[in-house]
Amino acid sequence: MNRRDFNFQLVAALSALAVRGEAVSFPQPQPRVNGKRLNEQLRSLSRFGKNAEGGVSRMGYTDADRDARLYVMQLMRTAKLEVSVDAAGNILGRRAGREATLPTLMMGSHIDSVPQGGNYDGDVGSLGAIEVAQTLAERNFELRHPLEVMIFQYEEGGLTGSRAIIGELTKENLEVVSTSGKTIRDGIKFIGGDPDRIQSVRRKRGDIAAYLELHIEQGGVLDREKIDIGVVEGIVGIRDWEVTIQGFANHAGTTPMDQRKDALVVAAKFILAVNRIVTEKPGKQVGTVGRIEASPGAPNVVPGRVRLSLELRDLDATKIESLFQTIRAEARRIGKEHGTEFTFQEYNINNPAPTDSEVRRMISEAATELGLSSKEMPSGAGHDAQSIARLAPIGMIFVPSVRGISHSPKELSRPKDIESGANVLLRTLLKLDAVGG
Amino acid sequence: MNRRDFNFQLVAALSALAVRGEAVSFPQPQPRVNGKRLNEQLRSLSRFGKNAEGGVSRMGYTDADRDARLYVMQLMRTAKLEVSVDAAGNILGRRAGREATLPTLMMGSHIDSVPQGGNYDGDVGSLGAIEVAQTLAERNFELRHPLEVMIFQYEEGGLTGSRAIIGELTKENLEVVSTSGKTIRDGIKFIGGDPDRIQSVRRKRGDIAAYLELHIEQGGVLDREKIDIGVVEGIVGIRDWEVTIQGFANHAGTTPMDQRKDALVVAAKFILAVNRIVTEKPGKQVGTVGRIEASPGAPNVVPGRVRLSLELRDLDATKIESLFQTIRAEARRIGKEHGTEFTFQEYNINNPAPTDSEVRRMISEAATELGLSSKEMPSGAGHDAQSIARLAPIGMIFVPSVRGISHSPKELSRPKDIESGANVLLRTLLKLDAVGG
Repeated sequence: MNRRDFNFQLVAALSALAVRGEAVSFPQPQPRVNGKRLNEQLRSLSRFGKNAEGGVSRMGYTDADRDARLYVMQLMRTAKLEVSVDAAGNILGRRAGREATLPTLMMGSHIDSVPQGGNYDGDVGSLGAIEVAQTLAERNFELRHPLEVMIFQYEEGGLTGSRAIIGELTKENLEVVSTSGKTIRDGIKFIGGDPDRIQSVRRKRGDIAAYLELHIEQGGVLDREKIDIGVVEGIVGIRDWEVTIQGFANHAGTTPMDQRKDALVVAAKFILAVNRIVTEKPGKQVGTVGRIEASPGAPNVVPGRVRLSLELRDLDATKIESLFQTIRAEARRIGKEHGTEFTFQEYNINNPAPTDSEVRRMISEAATELGLSSKEMPSGAGHDAQSIARLAPIGMIFVPSVRGISHSPKELSRPKDIESGANVLLRTLLKLDAVGG
Repeated sequence: MNRRDFNFQLVAALSALAVRGEAVSFPQPQPRVNGKRLNEQLRSLSRFGKNAEGGVSRMGYTDADRDARLYVMQLMRTAKLEVSVDAAGNILGRRAGREATLPTLMMGSHIDSVPQGGNYDGDVGSLGAIEVAQTLAERNFELRHPLEVMIFQYEEGGLTGSRAIIGELTKENLEVVSTSGKTIRDGIKFIGGDPDRIQSVRRKRGDIAAYLELHIEQGGVLDREKIDIGVVEGIVGIRDWEVTIQGFANHAGTTPMDQRKDALVVAAKFILAVNRIVTEKPGKQVGTVGRIEASPGAPNVVPGRVRLSLELRDLDATKIESLFQTIRAEARRIGKEHGTEFTFQEYNINNPAPTDSEVRRMISEAATELGLSSKEMPSGAGHDAQSIARLAPIGMIFVPSVRGISHSPKELSRPKDIESGANVLLRTLLKLDAVGG
C-alpha cells in the first residue's frame, strides 16, 4: 500500500463518518476514474456492430453482441474481476470484499442495442462500472463488501437478463423470437448460458446490499438545463391500453356533416383530451397516443372505427390510475356527444420502481463534492435497475444526452459528462461501502 | 291506337302547353309505369353476382356483369328498343322519334356494382329507364325525339363508359387494371366493345337534347325527412389532398410533455379545425379526413410525422377553394404554434356538374303532379350524368335510400319509392319531349 492508496482509504473512512452526519473535511486528492481511458474504451466497443450511420446495430444474441461480450470480459479481467457467464447469459465480474459476510454491492448495465442504435445507451454504464472497478484495482483498494459488475444480456428485449436475476423470466419468455431471429432460449445458449438452469441465477432479498446503474438520460432535460448529473427518483410505471372508438362508416359525399358518426373526429377530441388532462396536473407524468388506425381508411369514406394506443407513465401508480379514470370519463362524455362508443383494453402494466432515498442522497452528495450540478428526475425509460429494485435498494445516475436523442445513431453523450458520471458512480459506491452491513 | 293511348298522347300535348305557362287541367288517367314489373325485374337482376350477404358483387367486366348485361339487353328488346353495344362497351337501346331532325333524349345509368355492393345503386335507374321505354311501347306512344336508353359500363371504376361518350377515356385509362383483374382495354373486349375504335362513340354538343338519370340517393336525407323525390341540383365537385405534418419523433418516456413536437396532437387539432370550418359556414358542403397514418406508429414513441387525407365537396368550386384557403391558413397557424410543418399535395380534382334549371323545374312539377313531395339537393356521389353534363342539359331524380346506406349489401330502396321515381322519370321525359327542338 503506497501513500496514495493510504490517503484513498482514509477518504473512504472519512466519507463514512460524513454520511453519519459528523463534520469532516476531505483531504486532497480525491479518487478519480481515468476518463480518457473510459472514453477510448467506449469508442473501441463501438466497433462491434457498427452501422453505416455511425452508431451500432448490436442486438442481443447477434455475432456483434457475442464479439462485444468477449471484449468486455477482457476489460473486466484487466480490472481484476473474476469473470463468469451465468446460466441466464449475464456477464458477471466479481471481486471479494474485506468482510466475507456482507452482501454484494452491484453495479451494471447492458451492451446490447436496438436496431440502428447509438454508442452510449447501456455502454456508458457498463464500461463506467468496469472503469470504477479498474480504478479501485489500480489503487489496490479493497471494498468491505463483495463487488459485482453485471452486464445484463438483451436489455432491449425487455430487461431479459435482469428479469432472470429476480426469477421472472418464464419458460414462455424463452420461446419468444428476439430481434436477432433466435429465440431467447437459443440466444442464451449462443452467448454461453444454460436456459435449462435459468432458475439458478435467481437472487434473494438480502443478497444485494445495493445496486447502482450509470446511464445516459435518453431525454433532453439535463442537456437543455445544462445540468451535469441526474439523480433518478425512480423508474416510471407504464400502462398501455388499446382504445377502440366505434362510430359508423358512411359515404363521404352523401352523408351531411350533422349526420355523421365520424370515429376520427371523436379520436381527435380524445387525443387532445389526453394531452390536456396529462398536462394540466402538476408533475412529470406523460401521456402518449403513438399509434392510430382509421377504418376503412379511404379518403372518400367517413371513418367508422378508430383504434389507437394510449400510454401513461409516472413514478406514482395511483397517479397513473387517477389520470386514466379522468381520461376514461372524458372519453365517455365525448363518445356520448357523438353517438360513438369507446372501449379500453389494457395490455401492459409495468409498476413504478422507486430508487432508494438514502442512495439518492449519496449520489447528490457525491455530485456536489465533485463540483457537479445535479437534479432529481424520473427515468421515463425502463432499465435493468427496475428489475433489481424488486430485491434491493437501487440508485441510478444519469448523464446528459445531447438534444435528448436516443435509440438512434445520432445518440451522443459528451466525454466530459461520461467521466463525471463515472466519478459520481465511484464516489457513491464508496459511500455505500462505508455505511453498509 | 286505343282510347287509352289517345288519352295518353293528349296528356303529353297538354303537358307541353302547361310548361309554356298556359293553364290546363289534366285529364285522367295519368300515364304510369308498371311498378310491380319493375321491382320484379330488379329482383331478377340481383341474381347476377349475388353475394352471401344478400347484395351483389357484380364488378364491371366480370362474368356476373356479362351475364347481367345479356339479361338487360333482353329487357330492352322487349321494350322495343334496338339494342347494340357501342365500341366502348356501353349498351345502347334506341328508338326513332317522330321528328327525324331532333336530337336524342337520353336516359341511363349502370348495372355494375362495387365489391360487396347492393341491389339498387345503378340498377334502379337502368331498369327504371327501360320500364319507361316499355310503358311507352305498350301504349304505342311515339316521342317526337329519338329515345336512347344507355347502360354505361364500369361506372364504379370512375364513370368509364360515360367518359368514353364525351371523349375523355384516354389510352392510359385503357391500361388501368379494373377490380375484375382485367385491364379496362381487355374488359371492354370482354363485354363486346372494341377499344381500338373508342373515339367513334364520342358525341358532340347538340347531339343530346337532354339526359335524365334516376338513381338512389345513397345518403339519408330523403329517408330521414320522409320526402319522396330528390331533385338533384348538381353533382358536387371533389378535391382531394394528401396532408403531411412533420413534427419530431421522440421517446415517449423521456420526452416531457412541453418538449414534444407531437405530429399526432397537431393532426388532432387539424381534424377538428376541418370539421369546424366546414360546418360553420351555411350550406351543404362536406369535408372529410378519412385516412390517417402516424409514424413511426409505436405506442412508446411520440409521433414524428402524420400523413392524412383531406377531401372537400361542394356544388360550387369557388366555395371549395375558399374552404381550402381557410383550412390551410388555420393549419399554418396550428403548425407554427407547435413547431411543426404542414404540406398539402393535391392529387384529385373533379369539377362540379350542375343540372339544368329547366329540367329541375320539370322534375319538381312532375313530382307535384304525381302527388309526391320533393326537395332540391346536391348529389354528393359521382354519377354518369356528370360526364354527360359536359355536352348536354342533365337532370337527376333521387329516390330514398333507407337509412342512407349504400355500397353495401344492406342498401335498400322501397318498391313504392322506386315506382314513384320511375313515374317521375317518365313524366319528365314527356315534358322534355314536348318542349324540345
